[in-house]
Amino acid sequence: MNWMLLLIPVAVALGVAKADPLYIFIASAGGIIPLAGWMGRSTEWIAEHLGPGIGGLLNATFGNAAELIIAIMALRAGLHDVVKASITGSIIGNILLVLGLSIVAGGTKYKELRFNRTAASLSTTLLALSAIALIVPAMFHRLSEGANRAPAERTLSLEIAVVLAITYVLSLIFSLHTHKHLYVGPASDASEEALGMKHVPLWRATVILLVATVFVAILSELLVGSVEHTAKRLGMSDVFVGVFLLAIIGNAAEHSTAVMMAMKNKMDLALNIAVGSSLQVALLVAPVLVFISYAFGRPLDLVFTTFEIAAVAVSAAVVNLIALDGESNWMEGVLLLAVYGILGLAFYALPA
Amino acid sequence: MNWMLLLIPVAVALGVAKADPLYIFIASAGGIIPLAGWMGRSTEWIAEHLGPGIGGLLNATFGNAAELIIAIMALRAGLHDVVKASITGSIIGNILLVLGLSIVAGGTKYKELRFNRTAASLSTTLLALSAIALIVPAMFHRLSEGANRAPAERTLSLEIAVVLAITYVLSLIFSLHTHKHLYVGPASDASEEALGMKHVPLWRATVILLVATVFVAILSELLVGSVEHTAKRLGMSDVFVGVFLLAIIGNAAEHSTAVMMAMKNKMDLALNIAVGSSLQVALLVAPVLVFISYAFGRPLDLVFTTFEIAAVAVSAAVVNLIALDGESNWMEGVLLLAVYGILGLAFYALPA
Amino acid sequence: MNWMLLLIPVAVALGVAKADPLYIFIASAGGIIPLAGWMGRSTEWIAEHLGPGIGGLLNATFGNAAELIIAIMALRAGLHDVVKASITGSIIGNILLVLGLSIVAGGTKYKELRFNRTAASLSTTLLALSAIALIVPAMFHRLSEGANRAPAERTLSLEIAVVLAITYVLSLIFSLHTHKHLYVGPASDASEEALGMKHVPLWRATVILLVATVFVAILSELLVGSVEHTAKRLGMSDVFVGVFLLAIIGNAAEHSTAVMMAMKNKMDLALNIAVGSSLQVALLVAPVLVFISYAFGRPLDLVFTTFEIAAVAVSAAVVNLIALDGESNWMEGVLLLAVYGILGLAFYALPA
Repeated sequence: MNWMLLLIPVAVALGVAKADPLYIFIASAGGIIPLAGWMGRSTEWIAEHLGPGIGGLLNATFGNAAELIIAIMALRAGLHDVVKASITGSIIGNILLVLGLSIVAGGTKYKELRFNRTAASLSTTLLALSAIALIVPAMFHRLSEGANRAPAERTLSLEIAVVLAITYVLSLIFSLHTHKHLYVGPASDASEEALGMKHVPLWRATVILLVATVFVAILSELLVGSVEHTAKRLGMSDVFVGVFLLAIIGNAAEHSTAVMMAMKNKMDLALNIAVGSSLQVALLVAPVLVFISYAFGRPLDLVFTTFEIAAVAVSAAVVNLIALDGESNWMEGVLLLAVYGILGLAFYALPA
Repeated sequence: MNWMLLLIPVAVALGVAKADPLYIFIASAGGIIPLAGWMGRSTEWIAEHLGPGIGGLLNATFGNAAELIIAIMALRAGLHDVVKASITGSIIGNILLVLGLSIVAGGTKYKELRFNRTAASLSTTLLALSAIALIVPAMFHRLSEGANRAPAERTLSLEIAVVLAITYVLSLIFSLHTHKHLYVGPASDASEEALGMKHVPLWRATVILLVATVFVAILSELLVGSVEHTAKRLGMSDVFVGVFLLAIIGNAAEHSTAVMMAMKNKMDLALNIAVGSSLQVALLVAPVLVFISYAFGRPLDLVFTTFEIAAVAVSAAVVNLIALDGESNWMEGVLLLAVYGILGLAFYALPA
Repeated sequence: MNWMLLLIPVAVALGVAKADPLYIFIASAGGIIPLAGWMGRSTEWIAEHLGPGIGGLLNATFGNAAELIIAIMALRAGLHDVVKASITGSIIGNILLVLGLSIVAGGTKYKELRFNRTAASLSTTLLALSAIALIVPAMFHRLSEGANRAPAERTLSLEIAVVLAITYVLSLIFSLHTHKHLYVGPASDASEEALGMKHVPLWRATVILLVATVFVAILSELLVGSVEHTAKRLGMSDVFVGVFLLAIIGNAAEHSTAVMMAMKNKMDLALNIAVGSSLQVALLVAPVLVFISYAFGRPLDLVFTTFEIAAVAVSAAVVNLIALDGESNWMEGVLLLAVYGILGLAFYALPA
């Protein structure tokens, strides 16, 4: 995928030349995909130097850094609907598209894909909590009325963000400390092998991470600046672009890793990547965006649209059904993709 | 049940004599029940001659032929609400009533009813997909407004019907080809034994199938023609009649087979019949009806009423809970029947 | 906790002196907590004399007597919203707060908490039925309109109450008769040991039960009489007070027992207490309140607010996810508490 790095100067040049936003969108999106991959890899290299404890923490915290940067740029530009749509899209994209493709890819090679039920069902139950947390402010919005509804919603969103963040910290203690035997062992070995990991010196990994982060930030700003125009041009709503296009761009690196893992029958790892990434978005990225929005002086609420909520709820329910029995097969992957397809059709049809 | 075949000439005679529609409804409904049984049996006989592959396909495709014919007649008569109600009713009736009665019947004889968890939970997860697919157009209906809502809904319904039909084809490949070991073996033996199956010559089975189909079509037309009048006469809404009366008539054959299987502690088969029949209605009958409606020049959408959607969602959720642990007992059957009862009371109370 | 019995005369004195309702509320709430404990203990002592069959029945039926008495007093005072809120609060409080605290308490001592999956998942599936039953009248309320909606709702509520009551009786036959091996054995032993149970003579246990019941009734009347004033004074809605304060008071005894059981790694018992208590409220207390309301001449309907329904549905879903795999750990307890917290924040923010 590294040839796509050539799109970075192209995107910058188009941006400077104030070219057609559609081309800026395509070039910057294309450039972010390999950069997100490099960010992930360099984070893993650094994590390796820091040992399983702090290293695991680093991995868990910066795993979705590219998505976070895109969302922060959108937040700064005041595109609150796009920010929320990219949160939704990241959650459902990881569960339905990434996991669906992984299961189909693995399932066509192996009749049955087995995984540790305890770890999987804890992750998917956490995801159910996230779905609940995201549903509550929207319900509140529908049920309450009057002049001071908006401030009440923002307060509730902030409080829920705090609960989510605390839950995230506790889930790290669970997965990195008290119950690490359920997660760590096979995962790190397998990912090393899969990523063809060499032992990269700490200073080199740090430089790569910093450089990649800077470029992701630059491209994200270009991407966000061209999003509204691109949406209009393609006849799509902002929400559709956020839920489907932006989320897929931010998650492209996870996509390829998870699919590769599944094809080696390492479903535990594929599931961990896909569901873990969704969880991180819901429990870490979403609260952090709420907190940051206060710094920008325009608080972000967590009042998602009804369709977004339905999509998250439905995804959380389906992945729980699939994870609960500790085994999978290609048909279950087809199912996840079918749900993704149906949601995509509906989001596309919905007027802005 | 064969004495009920005597109702066929009665229904035709009443129809010709333009008698009270209530009597036509009762007579034609009564006549369809044994005919649907004969259609099922002759399909199985033909399937046996064609070998497990094509035979299985035949069985899977024509298993709900009676329901399909009734629905096509209603579609032709322009009774779109009744058609949709009969889809809903067939889905929830098979899950809640047929499976509920089967589990109670089996559970009073055996303390625990065990079944293959993998096959069962795949079927029930597919059912969850169906529920999601049926929910989306109705949500779209509530959330979008304006002049071109209706065509957008029809397009979305058609697209979803295509996704469902593709999923159905893939699920056939799964159950008849790549993972047939989960299904075929015990099922076919048991059903043979249960139905007291003799090896019937192919020509005879084909003749029986054709004759039964023709009579089902004739009686369905009489049934559909009298449905509105009967509903009014009995103080029921069209939707109630579709969801409860028509669906029970079309599924009567499955009822008795599934209950018989459960009483022999062959829960795998009972579950397969009940859940499989619901799945077929959702993934095959519903899309086919949408496609056929275009031939009739009045496209059918999949915008179900809120209550219908709630009923399907609730049924899919409950059957997943019951199937996930691979064992059952009479109390779980009572539960399914209680849910069916509560839904019935609510549908009955709801004004037209 | 017995020193809190001293609050009984305090509450009565404040009530006679027509003191500030806030103090009456606090004193009577504080007095009910130990009384509810004594009612529970004396019921168990009596149950022991009557043998496992009738004794189990007695335990199952009078286990939530304190909650029932409080609700009857609120019913008599015409506070229908508070009655319904206390039903909701009891259901979600037992599942989320009691079970959540139990799992956290047990999970910090033991890495894994195991329990009988069959019994647990049957209870949680029954709970799902209850959630469905409570959702239906509210949906009916939203979907139907016109002059005779209210009587139709009351009829539907009464019919559903009958279905719930029948289901409850059948579930007693299941747990006390046909499948008692799943429940009885370890539970009774453990509870004996845990409660430091001596063999108390029948007459003494009966006197204690009667005296405690009389005092609970007196304090409940004081509690209910001061509830509206207290709510206003603390800036809370009636519904919040019902769902959170009243329910916690009524369930305090179960709280401590369930947590104690979990800390001894007797999760089966802890789960049985928490989920069983929720079930009893949904399947027994709620129907009984509907029936009694007819005696008071002002029928109670089961039309809960949208938030209450969402809370019950969400709680039933989460506890099913947790119970289905037959094992638990502290993180799952955190999850239950997080959901409780989020619901609490939302209920608090919602205007009256």
